[in-house]
Amino acid sequence: YQPIWYTSIKINIFWFSSLFIICCVLQVFKLITSLPGLDSEVGFKQYSDYITVGDTNEKRLFYWYMESQSDPTTDPLVLWLNGGPGCSSFGGLFEELGPFYVRPNITLGRNEYSWNRIANLLFLESPAGVGFSKSTDPKDYRTNDNTTATDSLNFLLKFLQAFPHLKSHDFWMTGESYAGHYIPTLVQKIMEHNSQFPADQINLKGIMIGNPLTYLTINNGGVTDYVYSHNLIANETYQGIKKYCNYSFPSGGGEIFDQAKCNKYSEDSATEMGTINPYDIYVDVLIHIQGYIESKGKLGSPYYPCQDSYTSKYLNDPLVQKAIHADSTSWEDCNMEINIAYSKADVAQSMLPIYTNSILHHGLKVLVYSGDVDSVVPATATRRCINELNLPITSKWRYWTDSDGQVVGGYTEVYDGLTYATVRNAGHEVPSFQPMRAYDMFTRFI
Amino acid sequence: YQPIWYTSIKINIFWFSSLFIICCVLQVFKLITSLPGLDSEVGFKQYSDYITVGDTNEKRLFYWYMESQSDPTTDPLVLWLNGGPGCSSFGGLFEELGPFYVRPNITLGRNEYSWNRIANLLFLESPAGVGFSKSTDPKDYRTNDNTTATDSLNFLLKFLQAFPHLKSHDFWMTGESYAGHYIPTLVQKIMEHNSQFPADQINLKGIMIGNPLTYLTINNGGVTDYVYSHNLIANETYQGIKKYCNYSFPSGGGEIFDQAKCNKYSEDSATEMGTINPYDIYVDVLIHIQGYIESKGKLGSPYYPCQDSYTSKYLNDPLVQKAIHADSTSWEDCNMEINIAYSKADVAQSMLPIYTNSILHHGLKVLVYSGDVDSVVPATATRRCINELNLPITSKWRYWTDSDGQVVGGYTEVYDGLTYATVRNAGHEVPSFQPMRAYDMFTRFI
Repeated sequence: YQPIWYTSIKINIFWFSSLFIICCVLQVFKLITSLPGLDSEVGFKQYSDYITVGDTNEKRLFYWYMESQSDPTTDPLVLWLNGGPGCSSFGGLFEELGPFYVRPNITLGRNEYSWNRIANLLFLESPAGVGFSKSTDPKDYRTNDNTTATDSLNFLLKFLQAFPHLKSHDFWMTGESYAGHYIPTLVQKIMEHNSQFPADQINLKGIMIGNPLTYLTINNGGVTDYVYSHNLIANETYQGIKKYCNYSFPSGGGEIFDQAKCNKYSEDSATEMGTINPYDIYVDVLIHIQGYIESKGKLGSPYYPCQDSYTSKYLNDPLVQKAIHADSTSWEDCNMEINIAYSKADVAQSMLPIYTNSILHHGLKVLVYSGDVDSVVPATATRRCINELNLPITSKWRYWTDSDGQVVGGYTEVYDGLTYATVRNAGHEVPSFQPMRAYDMFTRFI
Repeated sequence: YQPIWYTSIKINIFWFSSLFIICCVLQVFKLITSLPGLDSEVGFKQYSDYITVGDTNEKRLFYWYMESQSDPTTDPLVLWLNGGPGCSSFGGLFEELGPFYVRPNITLGRNEYSWNRIANLLFLESPAGVGFSKSTDPKDYRTNDNTTATDSLNFLLKFLQAFPHLKSHDFWMTGESYAGHYIPTLVQKIMEHNSQFPADQINLKGIMIGNPLTYLTINNGGVTDYVYSHNLIANETYQGIKKYCNYSFPSGGGEIFDQAKCNKYSEDSATEMGTINPYDIYVDVLIHIQGYIESKGKLGSPYYPCQDSYTSKYLNDPLVQKAIHADSTSWEDCNMEINIAYSKADVAQSMLPIYTNSILHHGLKVLVYSGDVDSVVPATATRRCINELNLPITSKWRYWTDSDGQVVGGYTEVYDGLTYATVRNAGHEVPSFQPMRAYDMFTRFI
C-alpha cells in the first residue's frame, strides 16, 4: 500500500536541490500564513488542505492541522472528529477545543483551554460532503460507517505520508456524539491495517470519546429516563414511552411495543420539554431574538449562545476560505443531506461488539466521557452501555477535581480496559460548555 | 382572644392627643429609620421588632416587616419562613427574595427581583432561639411542629393587631424547605382559629412552598433516585441503598431493611458525591479558599457564593442590630442547637394527611414548587409526594416561560386543588439561584 504520489515525493526529496525541496514541501504542507480577524501572532504552525481518498480519487477530505503550542516535535498527534453524521469538525475547532473562537464581530478570540497547548491537533471533515470535504460523484454523499471509516483510514495514511515526522508520534483519536461510531469503526480499520502492514503501523495509543452514540436502542431508553428524572416530562408520558417504545436493553426487554403509541408519547415528551437546549438542559437560550448574550452560564467559557452563526459567517468569508486553501464553497456546520442519506441501519447498530472485539484489551487506553447535563446522548445511557460490557471495576466511582484541586469537575469509574468520566455541568459539546474541565481531563488522559 | 396590650393601645389611640399617638404608634410599630450600608433611599417603610408569644410571655419572636414598593395599602401581606429547623428567615430576606443583599464589603446592594415590589413582606424568625428570636426559659429551645405553629399563630394574631389595617389584606404564607412542615401545620392552626373565632379571621388566601420537606421517608427515596439519575453516585451504591434502606413509599414497600448496611451505602453515597453544593449540584463552589467569586452561574442573580458570611457580618454589626431594634445578640443564619433539639418524630412525620384534611379544597390556592437542581429536597421526591395525594390532573405537565415569553423558566402541572411547578436551573433556595424566575412565579401566583 504505497500511493504513487508518496513515492514521487520521496524521489523529489532524494533527487532535487534544497531550494526545490522547500518549494515542494510548502506546496504539499499548505501552511496557513495568515488568518483574517486575528489581531495577534498565532504562535504555532498550522496547515490545511484537501487529501484525496477512495479508489477513484474523486473524493477529497479537507483537514486543518495545527501544531502544538508546547513541543510539536514530540507532542502526540490527536485527531478530533465531530459527529452528526454530517457535522464538520471545524465546528469543534472553533466552538470547542481549538485555539480560536469567532467573536460576534467575526474577529477571532483565543481559547486559553485549547487542546493544542499540549498536542498536535488534526481536525478532519468527514465523510465527503461535510464542511469543505467533497466529491465530484454525488453517489459519494450516500455514506455509512464502513465507507466513512475506510476513507478516514485512507486519509490518515496519506496525511502521515505528507507529514512523515508525525508517524513516530503517539496517535490518539478523540471526538464526540456520532464519533461514537466513527472512532470504534476507525479503530477496527486501523487494527486491520496494522496487522496487514506491520511495516506501516499507525501508532494508535488510545481513544477518548465524549457523549458517544454507542447503541441507539440503549440511548433511547437512557434519554427517556434522563428527561424524566430531570423533571422535564410528565409521569404519564414517561410511563407511556416505557410501555410502548421498544427501547429494551439487550439484556432486558419484554416491553410491549406499539409504534403509533410510542410516537405519540415521544411527541408528547418533546412538546412538554419545550424550547430548552436539549444538548445542555440548564444553559440559558435565546429563541426568536435577534442578537445574543454572552453565555455566562459556564465558568471560563468564552463561547456565545449563537456561536455557530459566527463560526459559519467566518468560514464562509471568501478571504478565510482563501487563507485556509479551501475551494470557494458554502460551508455548513452540519450538512443535513449527508445526515439524512447516512445508512440508518448503521446509525442503529451497536458499537458494543467492536469494543469487546477490537478496542478493549488491545493495548489501547480508552476514555469514554459524558457531559452530565446533555439529554441527547446522556450519561445515564452511556453508563448503561458500559454496564453491558460487563467489565470488572478496578477503581470505584469517585469524584475528580478541577486543576485547582478544590472543585468537583466530575466523576470517574475505572474498569478493566476502560475509564469512564463525567464532566459536571457540561452539555453535549463538553469542551464548549466546560473548557477548563475538558482541558484538565484531556491533559490527564493522554 | 384579646391580649391586654392590644386593648390598651386602642385606648391610647382613642384617648390621647395626636402628638402622643404618633409617639406611641412609632413605639409599637418600630419603624426602621435608617439602615447601615445603604447608599440610596429605601423607598418603602419597614418595621422590625419582637412580639411576645406563648402563655408565659417569656418567648419573643423577632420579625422584619416591609411594605410593598407598589401599593402597601392594598397589596397582599406575605409571610416568608425559612426552614431548618433552626434557620432564620432573615437569611431568606438577604439572600433570596428581600430587597437588599449584602455585598462583600458589607454594604447593601438592591435586589431588583424583590418580592416586595408587589407585596407587603413579613419575615419571621421562628421558633424561639432562631436568629434574634429568643426566650428567657431554655426549655423553649426544645421545639416541635406543634409549639412552632402555636407560637407562629400567636405571633400572627398579635402582629395583625399591631398593624390592624393589614387584617383586611389578602394573606399568603410562603417559605421553603422545612417550611414544608411549618406552613401546613400553621395552616391547620389558622383554620382552627378561624372556625373558633369567626369575628377574628385571618384572611389566608393560599400558600406557596418551595422544595418542601413533606415526608422524610419519601424524600430519602427521592434523594437516592435523584443523585443516581444525576450521575453523582456509583451503580452499586444506588442498588445498596435501594436494597437496604427503608425508604419505601407509603404505597409501595417490600424492601429489605438493614440499618448498618443502609448507613454504609449512604456514607458511600456522600463520599462519592464529593464536595459539591448539594443544594445546587451544578453551581460553582469555592472550598478552603479565602475570598470569593461572583456567582455568574445564574442569570440575573446578584448573590455571591459566600453570601451567608456577608449576611452574618452585617446582622452582627451592633449598628445594624440597633437600627433594626434587636437586642445585642450573636445572630446565626441557622442555629444548630435548635435544629438538634427539634422533635425528630415531627421531622419524620408526613404532612400529606394535613394536605388532604386541612389544605386542599378549603378555599386555599396552593402552589408547591421545586428548584430542579437541588438534591436535598429534590423535585423527584416532591413529585412523588404529590402523586401520593392522588389528585386528578386538571392541566397536564407543560413548560412555563420567563417573563420575556421565550425561555423555559420551568415546568408546571395543575391538579385539582394544587399547582406544582419547577424552576429550571434553580437550587434549594430558589429565589437566590434564579431570582427572576422566582419573582415571575410569585407574581403569577398571588
